[in-house]
Amino acid sequence: MARFNQVTIVGLGLIGGSLGMALRRRRLARRVVGLSRTASTARRAKARGAVDLGTTDPARAVRDADLVVLAGPVDSVVPQARRLARLMRPGAVLTDVGSTKRRIVAGLEGALLRRVAFIGAHPLAGSEQRGIAAARAELFDGAVCIVTATPKTDRRALRQVVRLWKPLVRRVVVMDPARHDRWLAAVSHLPHLIAFCLMESLEDGARAIAPRSFLDATRVAKSDPDLWDDILLTNREAVLAAMSRFERRWTAARRLLQRRNPRALQRFLRHAQALRRQLQDR
Amino acid sequence: MARFNQVTIVGLGLIGGSLGMALRRRRLARRVVGLSRTASTARRAKARGAVDLGTTDPARAVRDADLVVLAGPVDSVVPQARRLARLMRPGAVLTDVGSTKRRIVAGLEGALLRRVAFIGAHPLAGSEQRGIAAARAELFDGAVCIVTATPKTDRRALRQVVRLWKPLVRRVVVMDPARHDRWLAAVSHLPHLIAFCLMESLEDGARAIAPRSFLDATRVAKSDPDLWDDILLTNREAVLAAMSRFERRWTAARRLLQRRNPRALQRFLRHAQALRRQLQDR
Repeated sequence: MARFNQVTIVGLGLIGGSLGMALRRRRLARRVVGLSRTASTARRAKARGAVDLGTTDPARAVRDADLVVLAGPVDSVVPQARRLARLMRPGAVLTDVGSTKRRIVAGLEGALLRRVAFIGAHPLAGSEQRGIAAARAELFDGAVCIVTATPKTDRRALRQVVRLWKPLVRRVVVMDPARHDRWLAAVSHLPHLIAFCLMESLEDGARAIAPRSFLDATRVAKSDPDLWDDILLTNREAVLAAMSRFERRWTAARRLLQRRNPRALQRFLRHAQALRRQLQDR
Repeated sequence: MARFNQVTIVGLGLIGGSLGMALRRRRLARRVVGLSRTASTARRAKARGAVDLGTTDPARAVRDADLVVLAGPVDSVVPQARRLARLMRPGAVLTDVGSTKRRIVAGLEGALLRRVAFIGAHPLAGSEQRGIAAARAELFDGAVCIVTATPKTDRRALRQVVRLWKPLVRRVVVMDPARHDRWLAAVSHLPHLIAFCLMESLEDGARAIAPRSFLDATRVAKSDPDLWDDILLTNREAVLAAMSRFERRWTAARRLLQRRNPRALQRFLRHAQALRRQLQDR
């Protein structure tokens, strides 16, 4: 059953396109509209079944929407929200899917036109691929979606955004933007940074024998550098803090090797193994 | 067509069991014999189709073998080779599958009984699982197998070991044991160590939201600590050198973040991405 009359997705790339497909597959909105900078992307999104209507006209795209989802790069969210809020109907809700939340939420919550509320959101899904060509309705299956709340958050708008994501993901978690950024630095930005560093630290010849452990650890180094310099710099403080936490373990592990301490090394490995076993692979 | 009359596999765990299954599936040996410490494992290996005959009797297992493959833990290889060489027929070849090679090859090449040659080998396949229950004939499909050669290496025996692995893997690469250890430290031991450190560096709550990038980067932290303290300590110098190489990139990346240098950061990410794109995912 349709939960929304019209959902408009701004930015028809991997995440925006997949969201459109997922919403349409589950009939969660009577109408899914896509706003793109280029007519060709709007057409391809329509052809792939990601939207009912694709357009390059901002006013046409958002004026009848209950919910507008900004699915462009992190640094586009604040300026786009400011521009589009003026074109939206009173009572409509703006949200995003950006990988960092503190700056976006601080820049938008309570700062838009009086009757358009902004709610930060971040579905933890994606891939090293990009663009509408890589979009698929199943992208969010099994994922967690984080929705942010602060003391300033409009509760009605928050419920709307939770209603959007709940049917699409394994779990919606509501938390404040600072915790989101700290945790994401640890579980996502850090593994990405490690992947980039691992690639750079390898001798040329050794690449030819890279086994699955290396391929798995570096797969995300294929991610789009245009997105990732943005994410890492926007979340700079939290990423640096996560790096420091990692370094403490790294330094301890090196000391165990240097001192040839098999018992302490085994304790360390065993504890890490126990922690990893608690995680469900997907 | 059978390339060997009898291949004996010593240690019927994940690697030994899978090797038996792969040899039998492709009929590369007239007879595959398995030697295990326990009768129950020998029986299970037989029941799973990993061996034609499973036994706990070393003499019975190896006396008629053309080729004996030591598939136990790294630190068992040298003592087992010394014990079993005495029971083998003249002209037979001993080899192993251990994850580090320099110490093993130095300890065995030219040091066994005059008419039994030792060749170091290492199929780069495995999983975080262990034991005969996890064995499967496809384990080596698409993998690289490294076979070691030094000036002391018996060339006829080397050819035999290459003949064993060639039909089972994507590619057999012959190199000296020191290079093997240096490259493996970089492409395998380092990602494992990083996975263990990543698990330990995470706040408790953040584990619940771990996305695919984190799960992929830490999957190998489920690996057996009994194997891994051994591998890391046996290959200690090369692992420490690989850690230092990684640290140089890590420190450079941190500096780019601290100095908020988007252009240099993007150059760094873009270069790493280009390197990763050259690797074939499997």
